[in-house]
Amino acid sequence: MAGNVFGRALRLITFGESHGAAVGGVLEGLPSGVTIDEAFLAEQMARRQPGQAPHATSRKEPDRVELLSGISNGISTGTPIGFIIANRDARPSDYTHLETVLRPGHGDFTYLQKYGLRHASGGGRASARETSARVAAGALAQMFLTAHGIRIRGWVSGIGPIAGPHAEVLKKMEDGEALHENIFRFPHPALLAEVEALLEDARLKGDTVGGTITCCATGVPAGLGEPVFDKLEALLAQAMLSINATRAFEMGEGFASCALRGSEVNDLFETDDHGNIRTQTNRSGGVQAGISNGMPVWFRVGFKPVSTLQLTQPTVTTGGEPAEVVGKGRHDVCVVPRAVPIVEAMTALVLADLLLQQRTNRA
Amino acid sequence: MAGNVFGRALRLITFGESHGAAVGGVLEGLPSGVTIDEAFLAEQMARRQPGQAPHATSRKEPDRVELLSGISNGISTGTPIGFIIANRDARPSDYTHLETVLRPGHGDFTYLQKYGLRHASGGGRASARETSARVAAGALAQMFLTAHGIRIRGWVSGIGPIAGPHAEVLKKMEDGEALHENIFRFPHPALLAEVEALLEDARLKGDTVGGTITCCATGVPAGLGEPVFDKLEALLAQAMLSINATRAFEMGEGFASCALRGSEVNDLFETDDHGNIRTQTNRSGGVQAGISNGMPVWFRVGFKPVSTLQLTQPTVTTGGEPAEVVGKGRHDVCVVPRAVPIVEAMTALVLADLLLQQRTNRA
Amino acid sequence: MAGNVFGRALRLITFGESHGAAVGGVLEGLPSGVTIDEAFLAEQMARRQPGQAPHATSRKEPDRVELLSGISNGISTGTPIGFIIANRDARPSDYTHLETVLRPGHGDFTYLQKYGLRHASGGGRASARETSARVAAGALAQMFLTAHGIRIRGWVSGIGPIAGPHAEVLKKMEDGEALHENIFRFPHPALLAEVEALLEDARLKGDTVGGTITCCATGVPAGLGEPVFDKLEALLAQAMLSINATRAFEMGEGFASCALRGSEVNDLFETDDHGNIRTQTNRSGGVQAGISNGMPVWFRVGFKPVSTLQLTQPTVTTGGEPAEVVGKGRHDVCVVPRAVPIVEAMTALVLADLLLQQRTNRA
Amino acid sequence: MAGNVFGRALRLITFGESHGAAVGGVLEGLPSGVTIDEAFLAEQMARRQPGQAPHATSRKEPDRVELLSGISNGISTGTPIGFIIANRDARPSDYTHLETVLRPGHGDFTYLQKYGLRHASGGGRASARETSARVAAGALAQMFLTAHGIRIRGWVSGIGPIAGPHAEVLKKMEDGEALHENIFRFPHPALLAEVEALLEDARLKGDTVGGTITCCATGVPAGLGEPVFDKLEALLAQAMLSINATRAFEMGEGFASCALRGSEVNDLFETDDHGNIRTQTNRSGGVQAGISNGMPVWFRVGFKPVSTLQLTQPTVTTGGEPAEVVGKGRHDVCVVPRAVPIVEAMTALVLADLLLQQRTNRA
Repeated sequence: MAGNVFGRALRLITFGESHGAAVGGVLEGLPSGVTIDEAFLAEQMARRQPGQAPHATSRKEPDRVELLSGISNGISTGTPIGFIIANRDARPSDYTHLETVLRPGHGDFTYLQKYGLRHASGGGRASARETSARVAAGALAQMFLTAHGIRIRGWVSGIGPIAGPHAEVLKKMEDGEALHENIFRFPHPALLAEVEALLEDARLKGDTVGGTITCCATGVPAGLGEPVFDKLEALLAQAMLSINATRAFEMGEGFASCALRGSEVNDLFETDDHGNIRTQTNRSGGVQAGISNGMPVWFRVGFKPVSTLQLTQPTVTTGGEPAEVVGKGRHDVCVVPRAVPIVEAMTALVLADLLLQQRTNRA
Repeated sequence: MAGNVFGRALRLITFGESHGAAVGGVLEGLPSGVTIDEAFLAEQMARRQPGQAPHATSRKEPDRVELLSGISNGISTGTPIGFIIANRDARPSDYTHLETVLRPGHGDFTYLQKYGLRHASGGGRASARETSARVAAGALAQMFLTAHGIRIRGWVSGIGPIAGPHAEVLKKMEDGEALHENIFRFPHPALLAEVEALLEDARLKGDTVGGTITCCATGVPAGLGEPVFDKLEALLAQAMLSINATRAFEMGEGFASCALRGSEVNDLFETDDHGNIRTQTNRSGGVQAGISNGMPVWFRVGFKPVSTLQLTQPTVTTGGEPAEVVGKGRHDVCVVPRAVPIVEAMTALVLADLLLQQRTNRA
Repeated sequence: MAGNVFGRALRLITFGESHGAAVGGVLEGLPSGVTIDEAFLAEQMARRQPGQAPHATSRKEPDRVELLSGISNGISTGTPIGFIIANRDARPSDYTHLETVLRPGHGDFTYLQKYGLRHASGGGRASARETSARVAAGALAQMFLTAHGIRIRGWVSGIGPIAGPHAEVLKKMEDGEALHENIFRFPHPALLAEVEALLEDARLKGDTVGGTITCCATGVPAGLGEPVFDKLEALLAQAMLSINATRAFEMGEGFASCALRGSEVNDLFETDDHGNIRTQTNRSGGVQAGISNGMPVWFRVGFKPVSTLQLTQPTVTTGGEPAEVVGKGRHDVCVVPRAVPIVEAMTALVLADLLLQQRTNRA
Repeated sequence: MAGNVFGRALRLITFGESHGAAVGGVLEGLPSGVTIDEAFLAEQMARRQPGQAPHATSRKEPDRVELLSGISNGISTGTPIGFIIANRDARPSDYTHLETVLRPGHGDFTYLQKYGLRHASGGGRASARETSARVAAGALAQMFLTAHGIRIRGWVSGIGPIAGPHAEVLKKMEDGEALHENIFRFPHPALLAEVEALLEDARLKGDTVGGTITCCATGVPAGLGEPVFDKLEALLAQAMLSINATRAFEMGEGFASCALRGSEVNDLFETDDHGNIRTQTNRSGGVQAGISNGMPVWFRVGFKPVSTLQLTQPTVTTGGEPAEVVGKGRHDVCVVPRAVPIVEAMTALVLADLLLQQRTNRA
């Protein structure tokens, strides 16, 4: 009955299937007076887009966002921003052979169980194409956050078993420095050759590779997060686990800190040279009791390898008969680099929502 | 402005501070006709209660739930169930020495930043006492789920660095067997001595220990979970990260599967002896595209070690002056075993909500 | 922060300004399996459209609804239905003379106070054009209701001081008969000449006329309405007062019954020839304690005369200087007949929402 | 599935039946820093209470509100305020004779149809006792509004067919003067004898009398109300129609203005002596396009006569058999005076919610 609305003071609703006429959404609650940076919007859309890296799908979609309302003379008016992104490159016929075959790891079976029917072509509503509406809305939210001094940046922190050390990247974020950019969005130059070899190996074998994304927001004021169910980390966790193919979330040091002792995990308070209270370390990821503490907010998200392989996989039909899936669609060997702007977008939506909500908490 | 309401078709709102008159809540949307099992309710409350294990706080609270409405002759009427749990053992004076001192890892600083003031005594709204209202409501939700054949069971899967192998426990769950019970709720008898030694060592050193809880729900029908933002795993992630002291969540094999290849992670479909479609493996934790697939739903939650130590910790005051915190309150060496019923309660709330929502998805 | 979302199990969000690129919306929660009747959709859109009656604005908009998602092979899939209605006849320059002049009765002043800026052209978000998205969504909701035997029909029950007797129209509704149709949607042939004379007189004087709409839904099962804040009449009242230019709402006999005694107002129960319990009269409008009782649901809505006159009206500018408004836009002498499909649409959204919600109320 | 939650930035959830252990609620979103005036709270509760007037029920309930959380040292903390009101005078046995008899005008039949069962004693959730939780929460909301210069006052504007002229009362409100107080809350001394005679006549005949309440809020800043579905008048209409026994709502001049022409209804702008823009008249009730315009907000609500008479009324049983209802309970001849604080409370909840929401509307 639900599930397509995200947020409370700032709400996003999305709609659209992968191979329909368009995907789109409505962003409601963006305050009036936000300068709309269409170049930034286009840039974020491009970062999500297929066809950028040698190991990514070759499907080409211009992904131009048509902003239909809520903006006047380049400024938000406070009314809802409706937008659509046309599906110009839809090829439903590519998928006709799959109509009754249940693809492993996809939503074919579960959508059928849920709704009693399903979109035969593409992934329907479960397609990653839906996330383009999130990136558009997240870019709008980021324009609002930027005006409040909040910067959000995600990066690939792991590809398959290759993990990058996060301390140095977090340091750059805290210092306001740019991150090393490459097609993998993996800011660890020393490990790039290893990553390339891994992906090439997977490609040759018709297989896919998972990974992780770490995201950091700086400039977040203390006080964001609504106890008890809408803790900052709880909303981030929901936001991240709502992205296709995610399997795991951890705030700050996450699972690693759960194997330690309190004396090793507590972030001790100190007063800095400007007289501001801060923590000496930031293992918590910038939260205490579900509320931001003024330190950088950071967390990690795990993405499973994409389910569509170039290998033949045994399966069954909707009727339960044995069948095979042979991957023919246009799909990525590794989706993780393209998911970075999606993670950033969802982070922006959470933070902008909580920033607005916080305005109502004191008389 | 928000944060105290959880759920959509089934909603819980909680209220109350650790050392006020009472904590409580309202559960709205429980259908009429559910038989209220007060013994089960009392049992779940007792499982959460302090003072059970040698390494837990000695604070004694009877934790009796007074059900004030929504029930007639032992049957739910469909109207909201208001309930309170009196705080009979509140001792605000225990905390007066902390009024201006910021305890590391607690909400003292962030609550002050958020609201401009804070409850001086105890943890205020951030106290784990708030979770007793969740356990009460979750027990009511479980009564509804039990009638629909859904069984939920959590257990401690890791204490500090000691991790129990989950495959065998999941097998027992799938077969409907009871789990090995002990005061640590750690169903791995061979590792118990090691756990006891670890906790005793931490206690002697005045330190605390984190851990993980794994939870499994069997009998969950296929079709639960509302795409795209209210995916089953997204709501579970929010639910779990809203529990005090949690830091991480993973669905099924989680982060481990993100380091693997698609061919190693996909759960392949098969038809079982009864002609039902199922997956051969269940690495996903019982979901595809955010919707339950009929397999057991399972996930893992990470809890940081509790922040209150018996050790002196340096900190600052609310004015930024150097200070010290010496732990004197009544607190656990390891909170994880007591958190099992909280994890179960939140799981029950999510599943009952989605079970009700699913009734509206087909014409 | 809000205000653009309506409903709970079935939710509509709308967006769009009168003279932007398009208005549109997303209808979320329509169950899968509803047959989409595009002809009915087009017909409802046409009924709302300007330019039908001699006394209505001459602005011509084809008002074609583009359904962008959520439908496959003419059947709803259970995923959100995004739709847009292009603004093909926008003429922003018509309004440039109004940029700093505050029109009486319009949202110019209040939007400016609310958002600190406003759409200079047309009514912006306050324009009646926004209601076209409601009519589209309401038509979709009616397709679902029709399949459940619920029929909704509104009519003009008053134009200026001329009021039609409602008893005979309600009787036709209860008997499933068609209502007398005319361009005024005023099913009282004997009073039509009087209405025409009134409107002609107002037109000649450059003035406008208000009126009332009565709406009736038959086939509504007993049990709809969620106590206590979402009573059936409470949601209908919100729905109706959210329509532009409405000023009043009454359920059943409404204010008239408030001047009477209990013995004159109570609807007494009886058992009909089929053994069904019903009320002998239906003064309440088909509700008791906020829940439908199985009788026809009926209510009346009051519309003020439209504020844009062909007369010169004194006013002030946004800076507080004296000014004049001379009506030049394309506007109706009487908006009430065109509002009938809007009232029907909002009624359909309320009833479909409550029909879905009712599925969750019993174990 | 819903219906017990009201509001968005400020949310009230209520629970409780008339003859259970307690009614109560949770008010969530009241900002931190509001001074809690317990005397005002007690006073508002007393105004709602039965037993004040000669024509009201003799049931005596102290109606003491126990505030359980969210307040520290007499100041709100920003966390939810849970509260209960014990039902000390419950006499379920008074109602046992009604168990299978359907009382006309009550929720007996519709609750049974909705939930498949019902509270046998009293009105269950449909009882007016539920409104005591609204009055408590509304009083808390008024404390917040008072600090922002907003004053809310309701009065009885009609009892049966006797209507008081509202212009003079509105003038007193605008001038900040006290209203004439009497047991009927009917500020028209010249008509009091007539009212008394009417009520005495009804009492002798065992009948009941309806009426209307007009409510006015002064000091409301321009800009409150969220277009398009949460217009100020739409939320007020929902709020009012959610009160037991209400049948009608009109904003400002309401239905009367719908029978007039635009030139008679438009409120023209002017600039006052302080250079502020205001309207010369206030027929609209202080709104334009759903947003407050800075003028007093006023509206009228219609209450049907209470359904329980001292007369024998024919009816049927739940099985459809003929039966009789003889009123024996403790009930009012005229409920309208006691409903004044309920109307004020709901008004306060709406305005406080919108005042908080408005903080999020500008960047």
